[in-house]
Amino acid sequence: MQAKNPKDSRTILTDLVLPSETNPLNNLFGGELLARMDRAASIAARRHSRRIVVTASVNHVAFNKAIPLGSVVTVEAAVSRAFKSSMEIFIDVWVEDRESGKRSRANEAIYTFVAVDETGTPVSVPELTPETKLETERYEAALRRKQLSLVLAGKMKPKDATELKALFE
Amino acid sequence: MQAKNPKDSRTILTDLVLPSETNPLNNLFGGELLARMDRAASIAARRHSRRIVVTASVNHVAFNKAIPLGSVVTVEAAVSRAFKSSMEIFIDVWVEDRESGKRSRANEAIYTFVAVDETGTPVSVPELTPETKLETERYEAALRRKQLSLVLAGKMKPKDATELKALFE
Amino acid sequence: MQAKNPKDSRTILTDLVLPSETNPLNNLFGGELLARMDRAASIAARRHSRRIVVTASVNHVAFNKAIPLGSVVTVEAAVSRAFKSSMEIFIDVWVEDRESGKRSRANEAIYTFVAVDETGTPVSVPELTPETKLETERYEAALRRKQLSLVLAGKMKPKDATELKALFE
Amino acid sequence: MQAKNPKDSRTILTDLVLPSETNPLNNLFGGELLARMDRAASIAARRHSRRIVVTASVNHVAFNKAIPLGSVVTVEAAVSRAFKSSMEIFIDVWVEDRESGKRSRANEAIYTFVAVDETGTPVSVPELTPETKLETERYEAALRRKQLSLVLAGKMKPKDATELKALFE
Amino acid sequence: MQAKNPKDSRTILTDLVLPSETNPLNNLFGGELLARMDRAASIAARRHSRRIVVTASVNHVAFNKAIPLGSVVTVEAAVSRAFKSSMEIFIDVWVEDRESGKRSRANEAIYTFVAVDETGTPVSVPELTPETKLETERYEAALRRKQLSLVLAGKMKPKDATELKALFE
Amino acid sequence: MQAKNPKDSRTILTDLVLPSETNPLNNLFGGELLARMDRAASIAARRHSRRIVVTASVNHVAFNKAIPLGSVVTVEAAVSRAFKSSMEIFIDVWVEDRESGKRSRANEAIYTFVAVDETGTPVSVPELTPETKLETERYEAALRRKQLSLVLAGKMKPKDATELKALFE
Repeated sequence: MQAKNPKDSRTILTDLVLPSETNPLNNLFGGELLARMDRAASIAARRHSRRIVVTASVNHVAFNKAIPLGSVVTVEAAVSRAFKSSMEIFIDVWVEDRESGKRSRANEAIYTFVAVDETGTPVSVPELTPETKLETERYEAALRRKQLSLVLAGKMKPKDATELKALFE
Repeated sequence: MQAKNPKDSRTILTDLVLPSETNPLNNLFGGELLARMDRAASIAARRHSRRIVVTASVNHVAFNKAIPLGSVVTVEAAVSRAFKSSMEIFIDVWVEDRESGKRSRANEAIYTFVAVDETGTPVSVPELTPETKLETERYEAALRRKQLSLVLAGKMKPKDATELKALFE
Repeated sequence: MQAKNPKDSRTILTDLVLPSETNPLNNLFGGELLARMDRAASIAARRHSRRIVVTASVNHVAFNKAIPLGSVVTVEAAVSRAFKSSMEIFIDVWVEDRESGKRSRANEAIYTFVAVDETGTPVSVPELTPETKLETERYEAALRRKQLSLVLAGKMKPKDATELKALFE
Repeated sequence: MQAKNPKDSRTILTDLVLPSETNPLNNLFGGELLARMDRAASIAARRHSRRIVVTASVNHVAFNKAIPLGSVVTVEAAVSRAFKSSMEIFIDVWVEDRESGKRSRANEAIYTFVAVDETGTPVSVPELTPETKLETERYEAALRRKQLSLVLAGKMKPKDATELKALFE
Repeated sequence: MQAKNPKDSRTILTDLVLPSETNPLNNLFGGELLARMDRAASIAARRHSRRIVVTASVNHVAFNKAIPLGSVVTVEAAVSRAFKSSMEIFIDVWVEDRESGKRSRANEAIYTFVAVDETGTPVSVPELTPETKLETERYEAALRRKQLSLVLAGKMKPKDATELKALFE
Repeated sequence: MQAKNPKDSRTILTDLVLPSETNPLNNLFGGELLARMDRAASIAARRHSRRIVVTASVNHVAFNKAIPLGSVVTVEAAVSRAFKSSMEIFIDVWVEDRESGKRSRANEAIYTFVAVDETGTPVSVPELTPETKLETERYEAALRRKQLSLVLAGKMKPKDATELKALFE
């Protein structure tokens, strides 16, 4: 399989915040944003792998900025690193002021998807080659995140998580 | 404010997996489960604080087990540790076999909520006192997760994350 | 089949009142509450019978108390009596004040479900043995309600509805 | 206020059974039908009273016939009797075979609505004058049902429910 | 196949405007109205043809009048002309004032549906015979609209669109 | 107000076809696609005008190609011409094969939006300057479509629709 670039899987989902999706402060519900990010990320994973894909995990997601009713929200997802059958997807969320047109970053998230066949068995995916500086940073950090994920799941001993361990020295 | 126990905020949301919530393999969409967990967790945070609460972050969530169409899914959420105005919520997800009635663990997740007043300004919440052995383990791990979250957000230097650092020594 | 107790089928569905579920007075729509009660009741019927179950009828449901937008609503359902292949499900609905945490009863309802096989043919279900005083009261009243239901459907003559007739003497 | 006829409030809601509204046997969920009937009935109550209306109770509803995915379902609602501020709404549900075009009765239901002002206080509604034979039968039975409802709610003694008592003699 | 009249396919879908269906001015979203009209029109096409039907095109739809939250909206659809396997459906939308009960026309739309078999292949449909003056006008205009549609799609030369051409002479 | 280019309003909404959005042939419902196109078009109109916008009309929309369950659908909308307070939005819909990754055109549509202030009164919008060949073609055709729309609504005499009339000569 030929390696791909992040731009091959980049997925843009621009949509409104509808009244049915808001919390008591009239801002977008965290749960609804998580669901939109999951759909955009699954499309990115599918574009990279051209297989059926399922959500494997959601890494740290911070909700830094409330997104009010009626906002235009853009969810941008792209594969940030591919492993054997799993893909890390980096998601940027932007919100856009109606009057000024100014876009500001509302939050970011990282999801992991696995490519499977029709029986649900994992299958291999192409490698990812980052191109820009930001893509390279995300690609490198993905390995630390994978180790962290394995450590938290008790599938790797902290002392073997070399990339991660280096952070704390 | 008087300290509370996890049982004071325990929230149970048992519901079906409906056809509109499934992916191409006929299993519950990751995004829909994330949204249900967010609603259950927000109720737990509200029961602990008796304030308006908003999602602050979602920590590592692993989807270990596919949940088929028509399943009965139980989402159980309870506050696992309270900080100044934020609360960590631990969520267990169970799926139940129709014929045998056997419950098995489908996945777990950790969300953080912040209590706010009507203007969105953070307000203090009661402390949490764990009671059972499991609650105590989760309470202790919550501090490591908070440090991890601050480190990943660039708000704490890895060398100051004493609880976390100990993991790698 | 071994008899079961109401606690074996007790089902708790705690969830928020979302903006999309409210009427012009900003209270939960009757129709949405009916749908939630149907889902909780169907899970209770399934837990008792471990079969596919379908709604057979809805008995008298009174909406005594408006449930405002943003409320936490708890729907609790349990089998109150089992007949040959049908089960009466008693449902209690509670609403919870955010500030005081006080729960109050919003309404109650009674649904009947039938257990069926994959072709839709009715199949036998286990008997129900009530345990508490409240469960015993509901168990006894269920027979009167079943007679009433048969009388209203023209399937039993009023004079043969012995339990019901006694009420009016 | 001038009396009205059932035809003044008759409301027809013909719609499809969509995939998101079906149970594991691929038939319309009881809960979804209850919600559609509630919306149609609320429009009928509003046409009769020209006020804000809220669901007060649901009387006996029998689901006699499964309604498969893709069916065309017609819900017809009309006021069957008006009391001081409440209205009984009789609802007929029809399902239509695609190939033969034949309509058959799927079930019927009775809902009660109350007319209120903007503060939620009950207000008077016009009387109802039945016209056809069927409307007259339903009008007369409505009084028995009202007594039954009061008896079941403990607001009327069975011995005072004269209309109802006559049934059992 | 025997010809049918517009009244054989007339479909009425009366429903409320719910909070989840409104735009920032608290009026019904254009998109939601388009979806309701599509469902009503598909039922009309199915009643005429008694086949599976799929949307082929939407002709000019004007939104002349905003429809506020809480309105009662009636969508009325009927076949206005049948061609070989396609049917033109004319849709009238009415909105009704709660206090006066007065109905006013909110907009109209024209959709085209095609009847197909289970493999998606077009099949013949009965002819349509208009009865009233309005039905006859719509029947005649349908041919001009069909030519317009073919011209816009590049499937007919403007000079061959005799009916349409006459308009501009 | 400074003129804008189509690229200033270009809006991309890539999303999955979910099970709740399909017709009996397991393809995306026409009505759901109309609703998605309306949301994307409204965002494009808002990006061009930076005002509140409401749907004014939908021009001819052809559904040339069925879009199966599970497809990835991309809706791309951009302003194609601006008039005094109205904007024509041209929408292209693409569907993408999972295995080959090949995108094909599923259909196209044209919507008209009007910019309004908070009271619903129309306000002026910036002019549009097309840049590419395709944008210029669409810009020029927009005037013919506007005349057609006025003629069909009886607000312009066919003989005054100079651009349109030329088509038939």
